Amino acid sequence: MFDTDVYVRRRRALLEKMSCLNEGKRGIAVFPGNAEAPQNYRGNDYRFRQDSTFLYFWGIDEPGFAAVLDLDSGDEYVYGDDVDIEDIIWMGPQPSVASKAARVGAGNSAPYREFDKAVREARAKGRTVHFLPASRYYNTLKMSSLMEIPAEDVRKVAPVSDGDRTLTASEELVRAVVSMRLVKEECEIEEIDKACDIGYRMHTEARLGCKVGTPEQEIVGRMEGITISKGWGVSFTTILSQNGETMHNHSHNQIITPGRLLLIDAGAESNTHYASDFTRTYPCSGKFSTRQKEIYDIVESANELAFRLAKPGITYRQIHLAVAGHILEELAGLGLVRGDVEEMTAAGIAGLFMPHGLGHNMGLDVHDMEDLGEDYVGYDEDQKRASQLGLGNLRMARKLRPGHVVTDEPGIYFIPALISKWKEEGTDRGFVNYQALESYHDFGGIRLEDDVLITADGARRLGSRRLPVKSSEIEEIMSRE
Amino acid sequence: MFDTDVYVRRRRALLEKMSCLNEGKRGIAVFPGNAEAPQNYRGNDYRFRQDSTFLYFWGIDEPGFAAVLDLDSGDEYVYGDDVDIEDIIWMGPQPSVASKAARVGAGNSAPYREFDKAVREARAKGRTVHFLPASRYYNTLKMSSLMEIPAEDVRKVAPVSDGDRTLTASEELVRAVVSMRLVKEECEIEEIDKACDIGYRMHTEARLGCKVGTPEQEIVGRMEGITISKGWGVSFTTILSQNGETMHNHSHNQIITPGRLLLIDAGAESNTHYASDFTRTYPCSGKFSTRQKEIYDIVESANELAFRLAKPGITYRQIHLAVAGHILEELAGLGLVRGDVEEMTAAGIAGLFMPHGLGHNMGLDVHDMEDLGEDYVGYDEDQKRASQLGLGNLRMARKLRPGHVVTDEPGIYFIPALISKWKEEGTDRGFVNYQALESYHDFGGIRLEDDVLITADGARRLGSRRLPVKSSEIEEIMSRE
Repeated sequence: MFDTDVYVRRRRALLEKMSCLNEGKRGIAVFPGNAEAPQNYRGNDYRFRQDSTFLYFWGIDEPGFAAVLDLDSGDEYVYGDDVDIEDIIWMGPQPSVASKAARVGAGNSAPYREFDKAVREARAKGRTVHFLPASRYYNTLKMSSLMEIPAEDVRKVAPVSDGDRTLTASEELVRAVVSMRLVKEECEIEEIDKACDIGYRMHTEARLGCKVGTPEQEIVGRMEGITISKGWGVSFTTILSQNGETMHNHSHNQIITPGRLLLIDAGAESNTHYASDFTRTYPCSGKFSTRQKEIYDIVESANELAFRLAKPGITYRQIHLAVAGHILEELAGLGLVRGDVEEMTAAGIAGLFMPHGLGHNMGLDVHDMEDLGEDYVGYDEDQKRASQLGLGNLRMARKLRPGHVVTDEPGIYFIPALISKWKEEGTDRGFVNYQALESYHDFGGIRLEDDVLITADGARRLGSRRLPVKSSEIEEIMSRE
Repeated sequence: MFDTDVYVRRRRALLEKMSCLNEGKRGIAVFPGNAEAPQNYRGNDYRFRQDSTFLYFWGIDEPGFAAVLDLDSGDEYVYGDDVDIEDIIWMGPQPSVASKAARVGAGNSAPYREFDKAVREARAKGRTVHFLPASRYYNTLKMSSLMEIPAEDVRKVAPVSDGDRTLTASEELVRAVVSMRLVKEECEIEEIDKACDIGYRMHTEARLGCKVGTPEQEIVGRMEGITISKGWGVSFTTILSQNGETMHNHSHNQIITPGRLLLIDAGAESNTHYASDFTRTYPCSGKFSTRQKEIYDIVESANELAFRLAKPGITYRQIHLAVAGHILEELAGLGLVRGDVEEMTAAGIAGLFMPHGLGHNMGLDVHDMEDLGEDYVGYDEDQKRASQLGLGNLRMARKLRPGHVVTDEPGIYFIPALISKWKEEGTDRGFVNYQALESYHDFGGIRLEDDVLITADGARRLGSRRLPVKSSEIEEIMSRE
């Protein structure tokens, strides 16, 4: 948890941003914290994860809390229940809710049931209730009941005109929160650096575990153990697969096999819930084949290109397109595509090989604020999202500003089903050399990812040390390990 | 996953049990599988955990499935969606839903939306829809919408008379499922043995990590890493604390400190989702103080007593009471209580020192089937739950039968807040020597837990090897490690 004044300052800034609304008719902003999430039954819950926006403004990292910011009066309320003797037996003595509220500088506290009452009373008085789209089903149920709207509308976002009955989540509140969380404060960057250092250790363990004959599951356990020993746990479900061409492969039931590539996309969350997210791809035998090295080096140079271009003023969409062009140019050199690089880039040919975006924002969530809506988070108001594969999947397109934290994660994959589909449907407009591609059907995929902070005049890779990434360096290290 | 015939046999047995209902008016039994559970936003989900009853009858360990058993015709339906090209890019090629249904011997399969239709159609025809109380909020929302009942009623259980509109979860279905899952099959016992072997390894790692100066969190990470390397993960959130007097202490932010006791209650879940659950308590310095050893040996002998008594025919309530009596007798020997042991036991004095029950059922859930209702699972129809602290918290009271799997977990704790409360309110009726207790206020707590299978003529501790438990053995091993 940060110092008290961090939270006070953030809520003051939010109040300021929401003052664009008509004075005296601003209403209240409500923040239901997360409840426990049952794993197999209630009481056997997943590891508790607080709602990120609640953490950002109210800091309390426990279930059963909610908060209200009165946008007209500026009053702040934290709701939660003090413990009784039953709770003390099971969970030990706890500080009071009042002291927890005071710790984050909030002036008022009350039992949890008063939160429901506050929302209902505000509505009864015709005041606008600003809420954020709920991710968890518990909060969906809760807000649906408090606002008397269907569950599916709790996740819709639209402008909330003052005085009107609130029917959806509040676009005004979403935009205000995004504008703040998008630009990381010094204290946040320190935490992301810590998460990256845990990520460095978990990936080092993974590389050490990448030995022919080892079960994938074995390596995943060792990596995740580190994230729990040093932080909150993983920032997302670990991807560790010899089928790197499958983007979100969460099965780990294979054995490390000679000649294949092992793609590991994994990150840690610090004890304060900031994320890291790295990807490395290793040759299972310790040495790349010529073909693997060729593709690997293209991806590595694409990662480096993106990093070199990153600085305030350029959009991440422009960098994505520069990377797409670079990849196409290099693949043309291998004879896998043919034609003018600019034309191919415009036609979206890179999407066949990299069907995802170059990166995303990262912070308290690994895909930062994705619950608030991808386009609100990743697109400036004058940007429209593309529809083509690859560029259309870009989560972060905005003009870069100092304090942005983004991932830089180009990749090249050979996905047999996608190649067949493009061939059948002629999506490639003649740019793709399908015959040359045939021998790549069992190649798999390669992705290389770092976490990058945009600074005043450029960019910095986060974490104290960068994971080895050059193909020669990887081979050299793996031959020693 | 087990062989096909296991699932076929189970569903046939369920059908048989439900045939107590009026012929032709039995209706349908519905099994919504679990959906993904969002961690911080949808798409960044907790590790997927299937609903245990769904796993038991339908075996499919993936999100997005549901099933229906027609209790009149015996027809079986599995609902789920086949993958399209988008899914193949992100998740790789997948077997068809039809082949997954066939793998578990179910005759019919259909897209997921047909599940909703099947439930609505059955209701429109006036057929009874039997469902189980939902644990997850997603399924709560789903069943509330399909059955058109308030969300809170989805968790209520009552008899469902045929022909009537179904307003709650079905007691008939709950009882039928409990009667089956309570008695473990051979193939299930093998899996529990495996989970216990992983538990043995995680607890061994914990003992090795219990060294003065080590952060608790460090040890937790090493333990949990093993559960992920060898199985699905932990079967419940690890309790590892030097405040053993707090039953469900989930914070691990202390450093191992000389002279204290480290209580570790933790278990693993096998890849097929069977649980283990062990507790050990170690002296942080490697050697018990005289006082610690005295209390430890009482708990250890209580654990042994329960194991020796466990066999078909006796109730677990009787064993709980025998253990309570034993603990009181020994505490009387130390001068902490005084009076007739039988009278003290009847007065529930043991609850001051052991405010929980002796154990619970264990299987696909660590507290097996707790989502179906503790009393349905742990109490025979002729048993009523007590209200006093300790005995009233007993989750498993039933008459033991071969195939039952229960935990044996006595403990002794010194909980300052509870002691003060009893003293103030005179709950102890003069049996407690508060003066002698005063010097135990900083003692903490000790619990020792094994997992036990009831056999034809006795009991067997599960797992290939038992974790060291005798105080002398613990000290001897820790002095070597």
